[in-house]
Amino acid sequence: MNIQNFPSKLLENAVDEFSKLPGIGKKTALRLVLHLLKQQESDVSQFSKAITTLKEEVKFCKNCNSISDSEVCSICSNPHRDSSTICVVESIKDVMTIEATNQYNGLYFVLGGVINPMEGIGPADININSLVNKIEQGTVKEVILALSATLEGDTTNFYIFKKINGFSVSVSVIARGVAFGDDLEYADEITLGRAIANRTKFESTISN
Amino acid sequence: MNIQNFPSKLLENAVDEFSKLPGIGKKTALRLVLHLLKQQESDVSQFSKAITTLKEEVKFCKNCNSISDSEVCSICSNPHRDSSTICVVESIKDVMTIEATNQYNGLYFVLGGVINPMEGIGPADININSLVNKIEQGTVKEVILALSATLEGDTTNFYIFKKINGFSVSVSVIARGVAFGDDLEYADEITLGRAIANRTKFESTISN
Repeated sequence: MNIQNFPSKLLENAVDEFSKLPGIGKKTALRLVLHLLKQQESDVSQFSKAITTLKEEVKFCKNCNSISDSEVCSICSNPHRDSSTICVVESIKDVMTIEATNQYNGLYFVLGGVINPMEGIGPADININSLVNKIEQGTVKEVILALSATLEGDTTNFYIFKKINGFSVSVSVIARGVAFGDDLEYADEITLGRAIANRTKFESTISN
Repeated sequence: MNIQNFPSKLLENAVDEFSKLPGIGKKTALRLVLHLLKQQESDVSQFSKAITTLKEEVKFCKNCNSISDSEVCSICSNPHRDSSTICVVESIKDVMTIEATNQYNGLYFVLGGVINPMEGIGPADININSLVNKIEQGTVKEVILALSATLEGDTTNFYIFKKINGFSVSVSVIARGVAFGDDLEYADEITLGRAIANRTKFESTISN
């Protein structure tokens, strides 16, 4: 279907706005807009209000930069969590993903991206400086780097490591290796090479 | 990724609203909401305004039920179009699809659905009565039924045909057959059977 003959300017505007979202083309946008048009006016205003309210009222935790409804997020303000360990992630989504594993009891630090010279993102564009300031204060004992296993993630890991290496803090990177359930046959050489280089003793694997 | 540990109620609300849209799951909804959150506040309010404005201000053409910015849509009010021919379609999207072919110069009539007893949609739930009223007026000479090639579409075609058959109007159904570019091998038996039964003379095919 060729989408160009919009019978209404208002419809075209709404479709244009929807198709600005990532992964939403004009066709999908039209489908979503026509769906909204079929709903009650109260449902539609509830939809658009949820978005504007989020944008206007959402706070970012002053401690870890994660999304929060208050000054300090529920993770940072939880006294049962280990505040001497910080897990550095790219985005809020990663915080939610790691929380879902139930395997981590420390705090987080959301960088907001990784260093990516191709897209013009340098160290100053993400929250590295405030991470370094936090480490300087001396209360953090361990930093776990949990960025994407990409060239950009590696670059950022290395940059952070160089910046905080002088302080008395242990720095680790989450394990890279063959994913659970994966056939060796389908693992790429870099992953497999790293998995062999970073092999763990058999007993430590069992203890988990 | 398991989506349940929302760090913010506002975020959760926005994700819930997005995931009500057809074909949008929780993961996609989160991705879209986090994308919106990264945009300027003016862009976000523009997004939500486009939707509420559409819902509040959009009009439906009193002639054909299509979406319109005015009382009568641009197709119905175009004096160069043949107002004696009406093409009956299910939705506004179908109007746009047929317009994109540049093969049709008549007017449309948007039913708003097809008869579907399984989903509780009867003749009274779609605009069949106002279609019959329009035919009764006697200015329409030809009705082209362009509904889905499904059981429900066929039922609706038959129902409409029975209702308007008494009036002096010619009723046709768009051709069903093997789609352009399709291998015969992959055509289902019903389609192929109809394509053979409704074969057209070779010269008429050329003249198009």
